[in-house]
Amino acid sequence: MSAVMTTSHLASTWDLNGWSRHHLGRVEEALSRWVGQGAPAGLGDAMRYAVLDGGKRLRPLLVLAAYEAALSAQTPVLDASQRSGADEAALRAACAVELIHAYSLVHDDMPCMDNDVLRRGKPTVHVQFGEAQALLAGDALQAFAFELLTPDDERIAAVVQATLCRQLAHAAGSAGMAGGQAIDLASVGLSLTEEQLRQMHRLKTGALLEGSVMMGAACACVPPAARAALQNYGAAVGLAFQVVDDILDVIADSATLGKTAGKDAASDKPTYVSLLGLAPAQEYAGQLLEQAHAALAASGLPDVRALAALADMVVRRSH
Amino acid sequence: MSAVMTTSHLASTWDLNGWSRHHLGRVEEALSRWVGQGAPAGLGDAMRYAVLDGGKRLRPLLVLAAYEAALSAQTPVLDASQRSGADEAALRAACAVELIHAYSLVHDDMPCMDNDVLRRGKPTVHVQFGEAQALLAGDALQAFAFELLTPDDERIAAVVQATLCRQLAHAAGSAGMAGGQAIDLASVGLSLTEEQLRQMHRLKTGALLEGSVMMGAACACVPPAARAALQNYGAAVGLAFQVVDDILDVIADSATLGKTAGKDAASDKPTYVSLLGLAPAQEYAGQLLEQAHAALAASGLPDVRALAALADMVVRRSH
Repeated sequence: MSAVMTTSHLASTWDLNGWSRHHLGRVEEALSRWVGQGAPAGLGDAMRYAVLDGGKRLRPLLVLAAYEAALSAQTPVLDASQRSGADEAALRAACAVELIHAYSLVHDDMPCMDNDVLRRGKPTVHVQFGEAQALLAGDALQAFAFELLTPDDERIAAVVQATLCRQLAHAAGSAGMAGGQAIDLASVGLSLTEEQLRQMHRLKTGALLEGSVMMGAACACVPPAARAALQNYGAAVGLAFQVVDDILDVIADSATLGKTAGKDAASDKPTYVSLLGLAPAQEYAGQLLEQAHAALAASGLPDVRALAALADMVVRRSH
Repeated sequence: MSAVMTTSHLASTWDLNGWSRHHLGRVEEALSRWVGQGAPAGLGDAMRYAVLDGGKRLRPLLVLAAYEAALSAQTPVLDASQRSGADEAALRAACAVELIHAYSLVHDDMPCMDNDVLRRGKPTVHVQFGEAQALLAGDALQAFAFELLTPDDERIAAVVQATLCRQLAHAAGSAGMAGGQAIDLASVGLSLTEEQLRQMHRLKTGALLEGSVMMGAACACVPPAARAALQNYGAAVGLAFQVVDDILDVIADSATLGKTAGKDAASDKPTYVSLLGLAPAQEYAGQLLEQAHAALAASGLPDVRALAALADMVVRRSH
């Protein structure tokens, strides 16, 4: 343990499972109510299949945890109407980031990309619905994410709606997730430096995870100093997530992962394990976890328990 | 000519070419400056290839024409700073709808969809860059459309930014363009009624064309009565566009179209020509054009010359 003050002690005294269960219930209910509404039958089915009943929902939980942390610093406390608008904004942001994540998986699994047939223990969308429908479902899910963020609902300030769209579009686009996937695509079979690998993952998975944290914070006008700290937290957790993903790809089996294990090595993709070795990669994940806790301590936010526990969960998960 | 007052006389006394040339210059310059910025090299190249140097830019022109019409009804006249913000919003909206259109073409041309190799007289994006890069470029273009609409620029009111995102997301998503493409996909080889065909096209191409008009209007707070009239205009022009597309697919050649002609008939897709016959389809296009002009006359907007001329251009174009 470093001498820096961190928040790693918080997680052990706090019930992440209970907190997650409550919020996952809200997210699942909302996604189930919203996704595919008004879509032609076949497309709506594919969209719902891609999103519902699966996934860890890490990104929505990060949104809601960051929202709670930001809310804990609000003075004066929001009145009931402001609070109801902020809660609704956070729930919509939580669902929107999950839609972006879900669409990226649908497209990523397609034959022209990773050509994967198993995802979350089920046939992938293109296997189930055909490639054309999978392509369209992914496209429609991305559009729907932005529709969710911009309801005709006066409780959610226009500036919050616009900020959330800005953050999500940036995290999802060519300077974020899609850009990272393009680098990934171009780097198969190449030997990357650790810096190049970090840059790829900072975009490919890190941008949306970090974006989730910042979007949650934006729903409750977080103070500027705390915003910078949350960005550091998001960056550390985002990178840790990918390092652990690479580790799990080597040490876990397909049944536990719910997707094809050993895939990265088989397709000759550079990973943290292939670059650093297994033990150093595990050590690196631990360092990133410490950085995340240190950032939370530096944020000055009164209640960062959910964020602290989620960081632990990201690094200690088995799938 | 019907007895209803229309605006069809305006077009002949007004220089659409000069107006278009000016605004197309602005749009091309802005797209060239914005698209692919900050993207990894390969992805940025594919994005720029998909968007730049091609296309009629009908949607951007509709945005800018509707913006001008709405602006002509503004009282009091906007001051210089308000005007500069509104102009910037309209230019961004014009580019954003074009990005959505461009991404839909990239994905639509892919082998799992229409499997087309020629677009705007050039190899399609997946032929030029590979399928994986085409998929990602389309995805990134969609995200970038929303990024363009939400700049960190105080001249553009947050409520305008949020409204534009809401309109674009709805027009592009499962209740708009993507939904129409899914119906199209499901209807190959089926015999549709005219009502079913109209519904498919209302979503597939109509939603984004109508959305372009409404987004332009939103950049200059159009009066509610005029908004409804513009919606009617947009719906009529959107449908007319598709009817004319179906006609051109039959009567024009590939060189003029810049894409493969006769494609719809070859792939057994229902069209207005296959459903109504060529001459009735041409007559229907003429009726829709009259509806568009009647809607403009009913809008009460002082200056609808550009919108009137664009409606004529949509119906009388040769490609």
